[in-house]
Amino acid sequence: MVSSREIRLKSRPTGSLSDANFEFATVELKDPADGEVQVRNRWMSVDPYMRPRMNDVKSYVPPFEVGKALDGAAIGEVVASRDPGFKPGDLVQSGLGWRDAFTVPGKMLRKLDPRGLPPQTYLGVLGGTGFTAWVGLLKIATLKPGDVVFVSGAAGAVGQVVCQIAKLKGHKVIGSAGGAEKIAWLKEIGVDETIDYKAEKSVRQALARAAPDGIDVFFDNVGGAHLDAALALSRDFARFALCGSISGYDTAERSEGIRNTVVVVTRRLRLQGFIILDHFNELGDFLRDMSQWVAEGRIKWKETVVDGLDNAPGALMSLFKGANLGKMLVKLA
Amino acid sequence: MVSSREIRLKSRPTGSLSDANFEFATVELKDPADGEVQVRNRWMSVDPYMRPRMNDVKSYVPPFEVGKALDGAAIGEVVASRDPGFKPGDLVQSGLGWRDAFTVPGKMLRKLDPRGLPPQTYLGVLGGTGFTAWVGLLKIATLKPGDVVFVSGAAGAVGQVVCQIAKLKGHKVIGSAGGAEKIAWLKEIGVDETIDYKAEKSVRQALARAAPDGIDVFFDNVGGAHLDAALALSRDFARFALCGSISGYDTAERSEGIRNTVVVVTRRLRLQGFIILDHFNELGDFLRDMSQWVAEGRIKWKETVVDGLDNAPGALMSLFKGANLGKMLVKLA
Repeated sequence: MVSSREIRLKSRPTGSLSDANFEFATVELKDPADGEVQVRNRWMSVDPYMRPRMNDVKSYVPPFEVGKALDGAAIGEVVASRDPGFKPGDLVQSGLGWRDAFTVPGKMLRKLDPRGLPPQTYLGVLGGTGFTAWVGLLKIATLKPGDVVFVSGAAGAVGQVVCQIAKLKGHKVIGSAGGAEKIAWLKEIGVDETIDYKAEKSVRQALARAAPDGIDVFFDNVGGAHLDAALALSRDFARFALCGSISGYDTAERSEGIRNTVVVVTRRLRLQGFIILDHFNELGDFLRDMSQWVAEGRIKWKETVVDGLDNAPGALMSLFKGANLGKMLVKLA
Repeated sequence: MVSSREIRLKSRPTGSLSDANFEFATVELKDPADGEVQVRNRWMSVDPYMRPRMNDVKSYVPPFEVGKALDGAAIGEVVASRDPGFKPGDLVQSGLGWRDAFTVPGKMLRKLDPRGLPPQTYLGVLGGTGFTAWVGLLKIATLKPGDVVFVSGAAGAVGQVVCQIAKLKGHKVIGSAGGAEKIAWLKEIGVDETIDYKAEKSVRQALARAAPDGIDVFFDNVGGAHLDAALALSRDFARFALCGSISGYDTAERSEGIRNTVVVVTRRLRLQGFIILDHFNELGDFLRDMSQWVAEGRIKWKETVVDGLDNAPGALMSLFKGANLGKMLVKLA
């Protein structure tokens, strides 16, 4: 028998996450039965949306259950298989992160051919992260020639990809992020105007300087003051792809709310939330585009890698302090 | 020479409108030159959007200018013409309300054939008001079979039409309005669930009772708490047609803001503002639909008629107190 350590939700957070909300447990894994595969995780994705899933709220995915293991996108290696589609050593993608290893039916896995790229790329620019950027910018915001594009959380996993897609399509891009290292990265990937929101008194005033003629597209990962600023600076017929609102996830405080709602009418804005689960019919188009851009060196990325399962809770908590540059990942031994 | 009294913006309101913001003036009208027509107004439309136009803010129409006459949709009668397209006694539509009479080039007028209906109908259900309802519900909210529809300002000029279009298309309709007379009217036109928001502590709680399974479409004339309640009760993929936010027009107070923005992402909502100026290519389709519905008696309407130019400022001010049932009109002698 093989054992696996896993990370469980010990209690629902009432305000900011703390270590007390997590617990580690060791479980025995059964050997694979017919059609089953045993996998040892190598890389785990750490994503902001996990935090609202810890609340007891109905949403597009069921909430995490207290006392049960967390989960999330992961890449692992097959260690034993009784499914003819998999053999030991195969790399596989699953939704079963937040544990060392697991045994599941082979149909719950997708085999991964990394095509010469580091496997964790398939959790990032060539995975859900890149797909989120592509869907939001091209399908939800329906980017059009000449659009001025504003991106919040621009140096995060999704934001860095959004900025670069907009740049390679010839747009003026304004990116907001917190801190000098992130701003330097945004400049390196060609972002035209940067806003270090932690150094600014007012996101709105900073955006007014960066985009004196206003913005046509807003890709929002942050919400709150960023969303309100984007409304204030929107041009007629601007389109907002609302991907997340990380500023409000890890707090019990009631959102400050957004106030500049009158302009949604007068400027004929469109604000649309989206989730990639609804867009899998477009996955092929995304993979074609993104594989080509990556091969051509037109999309670059940063990763923030944390070592070992023990550090996964800390990695998640640090997302809400803006600690990550690019994609946050946990690497397992 | 003929003289005309007109209503001018005397000063920009800083909070709620008052008589002090208006002044009356008498001007001499020149006789029509070649191609010109002299018109005496019979009916004037009184619309909420006039209030934000009194602020010195760039919007989809230029702000009213201090010291100059207000304007708005009107129906008048030709009294003298040197344009071969018009003769005395013709009814005409113009954008030159808020005055007794005027002389303009004939190309600024549209001749009106009332087809047996009271002429003011062409300021209401068969005019911009009805067109607003039709565009918002069918083109912006893209009403789909089975949608549960929530309408704020439901007993107002636009709202009453929205409710009835949704009903004739077979939908469950929830209408919010203030006061018993309006609620009785909503019941008369078949609204399934009514909310007298003035009698409720919480619009959100009232909506939760009226729509226990949530709403798919929100047609918003009011903004503020109504918009926040609709967000809270939205179902996945709900569509919001944002037509106006009268609750915030006639006040200097900063909007309370809306707080339930996280659900825009998690429920994949679409919020879209609109203005009929952008939709004139669809006017023919609207007129075909609405003429038929009116002829079949499937769309009814209420009007609140105020007599005489002297009472026009009061009519406008009363809109923001919710004094009107249906379309607010001024009738000139």
